[in-house]
Amino acid sequence: MPGPLSDILVIDLSRVLAGPYATMVLADLGARVIKVERPDGGDDARAYGPFIKGQSAYFASINRGKQSIALDLKAPADRAVFEALLERADVLVDNYRPGVMARLGYGWDVLHARYPRLIHAATSGFGQTGPDSQKAAYDMVVQAMGGIMSVTGHAGGPPTRVGTSVGDITAGLFTVIGITSALHDRAKTGKGQFVDVAMLDGQIAILENAIARYAATGQSPGPLGARHPSITPFAAYQCADAPIVIAAGNDQLFAALCGALGLPTDDPRFASNDARTSNADALAGVIEAVLTTGPAAHWLAALDEAGVPCGPLNNIGQALANPQVRARNMVVETALPDGTPLIAAGNPVKLSGHPDSAHRPPAPALDGDRAAILKELGLKEPKL
Amino acid sequence: MPGPLSDILVIDLSRVLAGPYATMVLADLGARVIKVERPDGGDDARAYGPFIKGQSAYFASINRGKQSIALDLKAPADRAVFEALLERADVLVDNYRPGVMARLGYGWDVLHARYPRLIHAATSGFGQTGPDSQKAAYDMVVQAMGGIMSVTGHAGGPPTRVGTSVGDITAGLFTVIGITSALHDRAKTGKGQFVDVAMLDGQIAILENAIARYAATGQSPGPLGARHPSITPFAAYQCADAPIVIAAGNDQLFAALCGALGLPTDDPRFASNDARTSNADALAGVIEAVLTTGPAAHWLAALDEAGVPCGPLNNIGQALANPQVRARNMVVETALPDGTPLIAAGNPVKLSGHPDSAHRPPAPALDGDRAAILKELGLKEPKL
Repeated sequence: MPGPLSDILVIDLSRVLAGPYATMVLADLGARVIKVERPDGGDDARAYGPFIKGQSAYFASINRGKQSIALDLKAPADRAVFEALLERADVLVDNYRPGVMARLGYGWDVLHARYPRLIHAATSGFGQTGPDSQKAAYDMVVQAMGGIMSVTGHAGGPPTRVGTSVGDITAGLFTVIGITSALHDRAKTGKGQFVDVAMLDGQIAILENAIARYAATGQSPGPLGARHPSITPFAAYQCADAPIVIAAGNDQLFAALCGALGLPTDDPRFASNDARTSNADALAGVIEAVLTTGPAAHWLAALDEAGVPCGPLNNIGQALANPQVRARNMVVETALPDGTPLIAAGNPVKLSGHPDSAHRPPAPALDGDRAAILKELGLKEPKL
Repeated sequence: MPGPLSDILVIDLSRVLAGPYATMVLADLGARVIKVERPDGGDDARAYGPFIKGQSAYFASINRGKQSIALDLKAPADRAVFEALLERADVLVDNYRPGVMARLGYGWDVLHARYPRLIHAATSGFGQTGPDSQKAAYDMVVQAMGGIMSVTGHAGGPPTRVGTSVGDITAGLFTVIGITSALHDRAKTGKGQFVDVAMLDGQIAILENAIARYAATGQSPGPLGARHPSITPFAAYQCADAPIVIAAGNDQLFAALCGALGLPTDDPRFASNDARTSNADALAGVIEAVLTTGPAAHWLAALDEAGVPCGPLNNIGQALANPQVRARNMVVETALPDGTPLIAAGNPVKLSGHPDSAHRPPAPALDGDRAAILKELGLKEPKL
């Protein structure tokens, strides 16, 4: 792929999501990513549904455009191949539990001495340090422990998980930031460094105003359903046929909203954002009394015309069909390992210096690039 | 701050969240960030609660460690100061609606010609291109339009917003990735480039397996409450006093779970991950029949002992008090503009080459660094 990282070779030992998501973003930015998979089945995500023609669409969507070679890192001949890859690599990514790389003989001290320019990014559940370092974590565990589930959902209702794996994805994004920052540093120092990103840490980093509210009051905020904690109106409201969201974040936008809905603008309960937030339920009643007289499409058009930020509650199909999303190449065409076409999310980083393709090369079959990679390394097939 | 970006100067025109979150991450990585705020009140977030001693804790948590100068970009004398800053800057960040910078005379063509090494990152609701480019968006709008709300919450229940502003935060993280990638490119080409990140695009990018499920079936997936769509058991389960989460993502972990709970391991309904997912409700009943006989603390200890990934559903206070979170410096000490101490989230990117401080300099008062910045630029106070 063309892109700002087109000179970068990434060797990727990671499985399932946090690491592979990070290397997907790197590949979208032009990096060459070689997945080093275990010979017996490879990346666990190859076994996760949904499947199309027996191949994981989930795996393919995250691993499009990468190459694959299967290596047993406990077998001497395969270790020689792995080390030949590291000789050429800029970045190594793993998401093993802390300590696994050292037990394989590839701890950071060893790697840094042998490959001084190599950057090694390790993504783990709890991080390389601290009392819980050796525990395993999955997305659900860090969503729960990190606090985001405590502010998601409805007061008094059952626990609610964020519907995508933000535990993994956030860690993946911070891993990319660590890697690209370390590349910048390397241009100055000539040396690689170790990047340690924990999924739990990433969840703390996205708590945003929930921490500020706790700091200011000493009280843990609770879930607020579909509204913003401190801006009103900034919520989902019911129309005759479906809910819509309205985000009128300041007095001018609130006045525009009142104009569009034919509401009075002099109600003292709604005179400021603070007053509106204190009286959010009353305001919702007033707004919905109007909105329920017409369908969502009518009100979205009227609010758009009035310049009030608003939008439909799209399902996945509707979100992907949005002309704006299509115009931005946020739905790209890629393929399963056998070439069957597949759609996947595009790259949100649009750069003036590089084209933004609407296509991605297919995801690799397990070990599918073995011959080409060995040839490139000048190696023969290891003897068994 | 020490860090990999300690040689980088960022001029930050952005307000509220997506842009300021991006420059907070850059500051945590060592960059110097100068906020250029409008003279009448500055960053809107200064007026957002919660407040401590009349200062926004929300603003301070996101803007700790930055400097501030107030400039009116329509006033010639202030424009001269702004342009002197751009002469020295590596990165310019804004989150205006597309077109505002060009109307101010700072469109990308002008900036690139005059400051060829400058990287300009613009974060907006819908992006610089496409039919909705000129519309305003807030977090709530892109959470709704991007589809994440359609997979968050409980089937048949009311709309549910993710409880933090993932619309802004995700865009902020992709903006950092765009900037650091452009820095890498600049080291090769000597030229800056324009980085265009849309909040809506970021929401599509984190839909993860929801897109794969839609691609495989043509059906939009719905919300699943507190469980994973394709891995079971991977959900919140009720104990005698509180719910916990259990993430037993494969057969070995499921066997360990059965051992810890005293459940039979030969129930054909639960013989594989696919079978368990098809019978997720029945399995939840079996698991909760055991868990409700004891408190959460007992079961978490037993599952930890058995090596089954699990965790409590922490509220914000509990999440921040976790010894693992503290050991990782994920709660840092910073301060409001008047010096009053404040806690905030730390930096999840831990680098071997740089210290990870548990402290951050305070957030700036509006225009609080004016004299020092003017002196540094060799400029006198502009005449009014």
